[in-house]
Amino acid sequence: MFKKRYSRPGAAPATLQAAPDAPASVVIKLMEYDRNGCHERVIDSVAALPDCRTTDDGKIRWIEFNGLGDVAALKALGEKFSLHPLALEDVLNVGQRPKLEPYAGHLFIIAQMIYHDPEESLCGEQVSLFVCGNFLISIQEDAEMDVFEPVRQRIRAGGGNIRTMKADYLAYALLDAIVDHGFPVLEQIGEALQEIEDSVLTSPGKETIGQLHSLKRTLMQLRRFVWPERDVVNSMLHGDSEFIRPETKVYLRDLYDHTVQIMDLIESYRDVVTSLMDMYLSSVGLRTNETMRVLTVISSIFIPLTFLVGVYGMNFSNIPELKTSWGYFALWGVMIVIAIGQLIFFRRKKWL
Amino acid sequence: MFKKRYSRPGAAPATLQAAPDAPASVVIKLMEYDRNGCHERVIDSVAALPDCRTTDDGKIRWIEFNGLGDVAALKALGEKFSLHPLALEDVLNVGQRPKLEPYAGHLFIIAQMIYHDPEESLCGEQVSLFVCGNFLISIQEDAEMDVFEPVRQRIRAGGGNIRTMKADYLAYALLDAIVDHGFPVLEQIGEALQEIEDSVLTSPGKETIGQLHSLKRTLMQLRRFVWPERDVVNSMLHGDSEFIRPETKVYLRDLYDHTVQIMDLIESYRDVVTSLMDMYLSSVGLRTNETMRVLTVISSIFIPLTFLVGVYGMNFSNIPELKTSWGYFALWGVMIVIAIGQLIFFRRKKWL
Amino acid sequence: MFKKRYSRPGAAPATLQAAPDAPASVVIKLMEYDRNGCHERVIDSVAALPDCRTTDDGKIRWIEFNGLGDVAALKALGEKFSLHPLALEDVLNVGQRPKLEPYAGHLFIIAQMIYHDPEESLCGEQVSLFVCGNFLISIQEDAEMDVFEPVRQRIRAGGGNIRTMKADYLAYALLDAIVDHGFPVLEQIGEALQEIEDSVLTSPGKETIGQLHSLKRTLMQLRRFVWPERDVVNSMLHGDSEFIRPETKVYLRDLYDHTVQIMDLIESYRDVVTSLMDMYLSSVGLRTNETMRVLTVISSIFIPLTFLVGVYGMNFSNIPELKTSWGYFALWGVMIVIAIGQLIFFRRKKWL
Amino acid sequence: MFKKRYSRPGAAPATLQAAPDAPASVVIKLMEYDRNGCHERVIDSVAALPDCRTTDDGKIRWIEFNGLGDVAALKALGEKFSLHPLALEDVLNVGQRPKLEPYAGHLFIIAQMIYHDPEESLCGEQVSLFVCGNFLISIQEDAEMDVFEPVRQRIRAGGGNIRTMKADYLAYALLDAIVDHGFPVLEQIGEALQEIEDSVLTSPGKETIGQLHSLKRTLMQLRRFVWPERDVVNSMLHGDSEFIRPETKVYLRDLYDHTVQIMDLIESYRDVVTSLMDMYLSSVGLRTNETMRVLTVISSIFIPLTFLVGVYGMNFSNIPELKTSWGYFALWGVMIVIAIGQLIFFRRKKWL
Amino acid sequence: MFKKRYSRPGAAPATLQAAPDAPASVVIKLMEYDRNGCHERVIDSVAALPDCRTTDDGKIRWIEFNGLGDVAALKALGEKFSLHPLALEDVLNVGQRPKLEPYAGHLFIIAQMIYHDPEESLCGEQVSLFVCGNFLISIQEDAEMDVFEPVRQRIRAGGGNIRTMKADYLAYALLDAIVDHGFPVLEQIGEALQEIEDSVLTSPGKETIGQLHSLKRTLMQLRRFVWPERDVVNSMLHGDSEFIRPETKVYLRDLYDHTVQIMDLIESYRDVVTSLMDMYLSSVGLRTNETMRVLTVISSIFIPLTFLVGVYGMNFSNIPELKTSWGYFALWGVMIVIAIGQLIFFRRKKWL
Repeated sequence: MFKKRYSRPGAAPATLQAAPDAPASVVIKLMEYDRNGCHERVIDSVAALPDCRTTDDGKIRWIEFNGLGDVAALKALGEKFSLHPLALEDVLNVGQRPKLEPYAGHLFIIAQMIYHDPEESLCGEQVSLFVCGNFLISIQEDAEMDVFEPVRQRIRAGGGNIRTMKADYLAYALLDAIVDHGFPVLEQIGEALQEIEDSVLTSPGKETIGQLHSLKRTLMQLRRFVWPERDVVNSMLHGDSEFIRPETKVYLRDLYDHTVQIMDLIESYRDVVTSLMDMYLSSVGLRTNETMRVLTVISSIFIPLTFLVGVYGMNFSNIPELKTSWGYFALWGVMIVIAIGQLIFFRRKKWL
Repeated sequence: MFKKRYSRPGAAPATLQAAPDAPASVVIKLMEYDRNGCHERVIDSVAALPDCRTTDDGKIRWIEFNGLGDVAALKALGEKFSLHPLALEDVLNVGQRPKLEPYAGHLFIIAQMIYHDPEESLCGEQVSLFVCGNFLISIQEDAEMDVFEPVRQRIRAGGGNIRTMKADYLAYALLDAIVDHGFPVLEQIGEALQEIEDSVLTSPGKETIGQLHSLKRTLMQLRRFVWPERDVVNSMLHGDSEFIRPETKVYLRDLYDHTVQIMDLIESYRDVVTSLMDMYLSSVGLRTNETMRVLTVISSIFIPLTFLVGVYGMNFSNIPELKTSWGYFALWGVMIVIAIGQLIFFRRKKWL
Repeated sequence: MFKKRYSRPGAAPATLQAAPDAPASVVIKLMEYDRNGCHERVIDSVAALPDCRTTDDGKIRWIEFNGLGDVAALKALGEKFSLHPLALEDVLNVGQRPKLEPYAGHLFIIAQMIYHDPEESLCGEQVSLFVCGNFLISIQEDAEMDVFEPVRQRIRAGGGNIRTMKADYLAYALLDAIVDHGFPVLEQIGEALQEIEDSVLTSPGKETIGQLHSLKRTLMQLRRFVWPERDVVNSMLHGDSEFIRPETKVYLRDLYDHTVQIMDLIESYRDVVTSLMDMYLSSVGLRTNETMRVLTVISSIFIPLTFLVGVYGMNFSNIPELKTSWGYFALWGVMIVIAIGQLIFFRRKKWL
Repeated sequence: MFKKRYSRPGAAPATLQAAPDAPASVVIKLMEYDRNGCHERVIDSVAALPDCRTTDDGKIRWIEFNGLGDVAALKALGEKFSLHPLALEDVLNVGQRPKLEPYAGHLFIIAQMIYHDPEESLCGEQVSLFVCGNFLISIQEDAEMDVFEPVRQRIRAGGGNIRTMKADYLAYALLDAIVDHGFPVLEQIGEALQEIEDSVLTSPGKETIGQLHSLKRTLMQLRRFVWPERDVVNSMLHGDSEFIRPETKVYLRDLYDHTVQIMDLIESYRDVVTSLMDMYLSSVGLRTNETMRVLTVISSIFIPLTFLVGVYGMNFSNIPELKTSWGYFALWGVMIVIAIGQLIFFRRKKWL
Repeated sequence: MFKKRYSRPGAAPATLQAAPDAPASVVIKLMEYDRNGCHERVIDSVAALPDCRTTDDGKIRWIEFNGLGDVAALKALGEKFSLHPLALEDVLNVGQRPKLEPYAGHLFIIAQMIYHDPEESLCGEQVSLFVCGNFLISIQEDAEMDVFEPVRQRIRAGGGNIRTMKADYLAYALLDAIVDHGFPVLEQIGEALQEIEDSVLTSPGKETIGQLHSLKRTLMQLRRFVWPERDVVNSMLHGDSEFIRPETKVYLRDLYDHTVQIMDLIESYRDVVTSLMDMYLSSVGLRTNETMRVLTVISSIFIPLTFLVGVYGMNFSNIPELKTSWGYFALWGVMIVIAIGQLIFFRRKKWL
């Protein structure tokens, strides 16, 4: 579900190796916009991209590079925009912790996008951002599922202030889209917990503990991604990078707040899961107890009676009681008294 | 119980969307007071409010804005008093963590009010405060249940120093009312814990663990609200905001103390809940044990005896004992010896 | 056991309300001493107290104010010595966390005295100290049980250096008496733990877990009082209050050490309690296991035999074995073999 | 598996004692390289080594010293290169925590290499590095299993920038090889956890808990080695040692990142192990419950019926029912009704 | 095992009270040494000791004062060497946390010596050190068991640099001897854990949990002594005391390292103990399960069969089956089919 790739131990640093399971084809999209308009197009190859570092026409350019299977194209991109080879290695080795690394000429940000894919299971995908004054490069493995569409629409629509701000605001907007996608994911987890909570006492099934364990693992994974994401936003907010302009910081503060809220939710769900596991365990114990009580009551009543009737089923030649005409009925009386006595005893113990 | 609302992921920041389940009507109240007197009235619309930012007649004005269903009115309020759009977004997205955000021209405070509603269940409601030198705007969703009435009465009565202080003291008084409402809530939780503690060993019921779990969740939620509330008060106390005057700080120190006491209580109740869950588990184990012992004692005594009487119920043609006249009585003797022997054994093991 | 009182939510700060269950009468004692002598007397009313703030005759005056039921007397005391109203509110709202608050003109210290009352249960009582250069006011609810008597005797005896030091040393001496009273209390807890430890494996009773839970709660409460007490001493030691003179600091360092030792003991007792709870649980599990084994062995041996004798108790007209003269004895042989086989099997499994 | 050796208590510091179980023979290899070429040879004795401290021909020299059994050779090495005796003591006392110690003239680094040996069990081996400007000494116990081969091949091949950098980069490359070897080790642990996770609910065996415990111990040991390794890298990155040049720091930042990722994996695997242990416990409880239910259902149905047939097996002379011709069939009817009633009851309780 | 003594609460600070259970006799030994030689003698009384504070002949003097029963001698010692009374109080109140306290004229160090006494149980003993430029006073309760002998022998032998260094190096050597004695103690604990680990799954006995609990307590106690010992060494290393000379610090860094290694071992053993307790619990659960399964299988097979044979043991006059000649054999057939069916069922459930 969450991919994790790493370089061969001992390999030279900044070795770029293609992701083995990634499609080799690469799709590059360019979105150019400024206060006055917005222009989108699909680019054939890295070479066809405008060199944003030198052209300074005031336009913001967002280059989307989708696909990690074509190392040559990625290398070309890196050379064209002077991206650091160690950063490119991290782009390929997906499953990185979110991080912010300042390099000469650009900021490098790794974030983890979390969403429910159409088949309703939780997915994560690494998004790498290179931010400079007037361009932003976003790289991801697979562009099919995309949390960025609302951002694109805001740029197209031109409402708000997205078209009047620089690439750092665009980076904020993308990170915000990524972080806010955590809320519906957590809402689903919350609902799943609610369901389990309702059923754990009434009908704890064998699968309940498995569900809880799987929710716990999911929360652990989310936590592993969101904790450092908070640090990334914090570094952007309080760092002194030249690429983050002061007017963007009030928005980053808001974004920081969102990451803290998500952490809060994750932590409290973790506590709930732990508490539900305890409830489940005690619920299993209670059921064992209840089963045991049924067994004990029935056995305690009938085993002594069975002994008694066994006594008078013996074939001794000289059993005086057998010869009386009232013996059978007297025995019934005794047995009923014993049974009622036990019932009273068990009711007093609250076992019935 | 505790509402939580968030913006659509990818939405532009500072997007104001009406709370879907909030009543559309808004009630605005204005309380003007100074050393000499106090005047209250209900205002029809935001437009009718005095522009407190420019009028400087030494009066303190407290504007209560109740209802989150009318976004237009809220926008108007924001424009009239230059409230930051990001702050207004947080006002609408209730369920925020308590926080303090300094903006140019005003302090923005979010707090979470906790109380028992008339139907005796625990409720939380977000209160947003905008504090400036001589006015304070408080915004909440629903004004029916209100922890602020004692503050209003103190203003009307004019006792103490509330009428001689500025809006920062009013903010302190409101936060103090919110925080102190935590004490009776926690007292009720403490009593519930006491009851469970008394019963968990004597008669642990199936619902006990559910109650404990629900108390634990409540404490977790309180904790999530009170921890950051402490930070808010701390920021007011040690921050260097122009809107918090030094003479208010001694009161804020007192308020800080109250939040710490509440945290203390919450933490110790959490420990008690955990300990009670352990007691409950061991209590269930003990009961299983006890049930088991009854079953074992009865079975161990009667199963061998039943075997014995079964032996003499057999129809073999040649069972010498059957033909003696004393066999039956001898068997009774043997069986009584066996039974007494077992009773002694079980008493030695302290199972009886 | 540990009282906790708080102001009505929304009440004005520094509202003094009498403790409802405190006796209305107040006892005021004054102890005046210097290098040359010591004089003690009981004072009728606050008005009769000397105004220590102005008289500077080199004498140290210790005013003991016992009883929280008479708010008027407390107010008078506050006015006479310019005690801050917020401090007086904390004096009345007993159950405060220990704290140190510097006010203009005096230091305000809250400590929690812990002792075993004559009926051998653990008690806590709040002691409030106001420290100034040459006088100290101590306020407590009830003077009957008193950990301060040894300090009074040291003042009367004049040994050591207590009569040559100022009020800050007296404050140290009182705090030291309070803190050191924790040692015998913890020693008793340690002995109780030792007893439980000895019995938990041999004879775990139903009440054991309750005792452990109650010890845990007590330790939690002690912890809640001692942690901040350590902070109080630390503030006195490292703060820059004018009321703590350098020559007292070496003693405060010693006191700090004692609080750390008490914390250490509390933490390790908490660990022991947790470990004993685990032992108890496993001990319950072991006993269930043992009970089960007895049941299983007896049932496994006799149930098949009972079946066998049942077979030959049947009344079929044609059961060949019944008619032989050796059948009965052969059956006994078979049954003895089966029983011995099972005994060997269970012994191999170490169930016997 | 992980060796641990310490000096005799009370021994003088810097006492060198041969590792008792280490082979006495020592293998010394020298690799000399610079931008232009690379030369490798095996050295007979320490005396034959060039004195790298004085020769400054721009070449980097990597001295590999394999074997801890020959204290004399080690002492000679120490004297030749002025290595501190306390550092040499740590070289011999394997099982040290990874650490970085600056000495006059060289940096001393201890790292722990972790790998799967050919027999597929986890092994650790201490590697000690002495780093100076243009030479690096690596000391390890046993050179058979070696994670450094890829680094040697990179030096031989001359690709990348390893031949253009100094000894600090070589130290980085060696540490990187050591740290990155943690990834496949953790991947194996992850797979083992996955297998247990799949089986713990369906077929929890007796050995499962042992496997989990052993994985937990392994993770604990890895953690004990990786935590300080992170600190070592951090000290290299942020320390001000003259031996670490600024151009190496961007690579150390990358290495730091890898240690953090490994820590992350270890922590999350620890959480998974804990969660699986809980699942296992509840799974055992569930199976007990299930077994109990089978026993209870069968006993509850047949014990009362056995009693009934026992009643009519009695030999009383006057049992009216026995003489009827329909009694036997009526009893069957009654018994079937009882059995069906119980089956319905148990199905309602969801025990069947 | 570990003694703990404290002053009577309320007692004046620096009150010296003899340890009640300490032998009253005191043994004082003096060791004088310098680069050239070493001289040892036993001193009769404190008065006979040379006044090391004034004599400055370059010799280092180590005064060993053994026995805490003679308060007068200790007082004399304190007066002769100007030892602070609060320090002497701590010397008598054994069981203190290890600590370092700078006083005017000397450093005061408390350490806890841990060793196995001849009867193989773990013991702790407080060692108090007073360190000055050229003399060191060590005070302990009982000199019989002594971890300092190797240090004495190193002084006598004159090897290493102990005779060329000052009293601070001697203090280091003594602390090093104390700390390093922790390694064999921990090794024994490690072996005990290994044994329990091997047996906990195969044959968990009733005493296992008690052993684990006692190991846990021991580890807790060690931890309580070693944590502050680390702080003591750290203070010596990084403090600016005039009594610790720079040339000793490289040795102190080594000692610090040893304390960290011991802490590491303690922490990992604690984790192992916790994990073993969990294993033990699950092992008990598994055994219960297994016992239950035997009972269930045997009962499930024979109880229905016993019912069947009971049916044909009834004495109804009209039971058609009884009169057939094949009835008995047919019943055996039915019963064998039922038994085999159940065996197959239980084997499918993997209960056999």
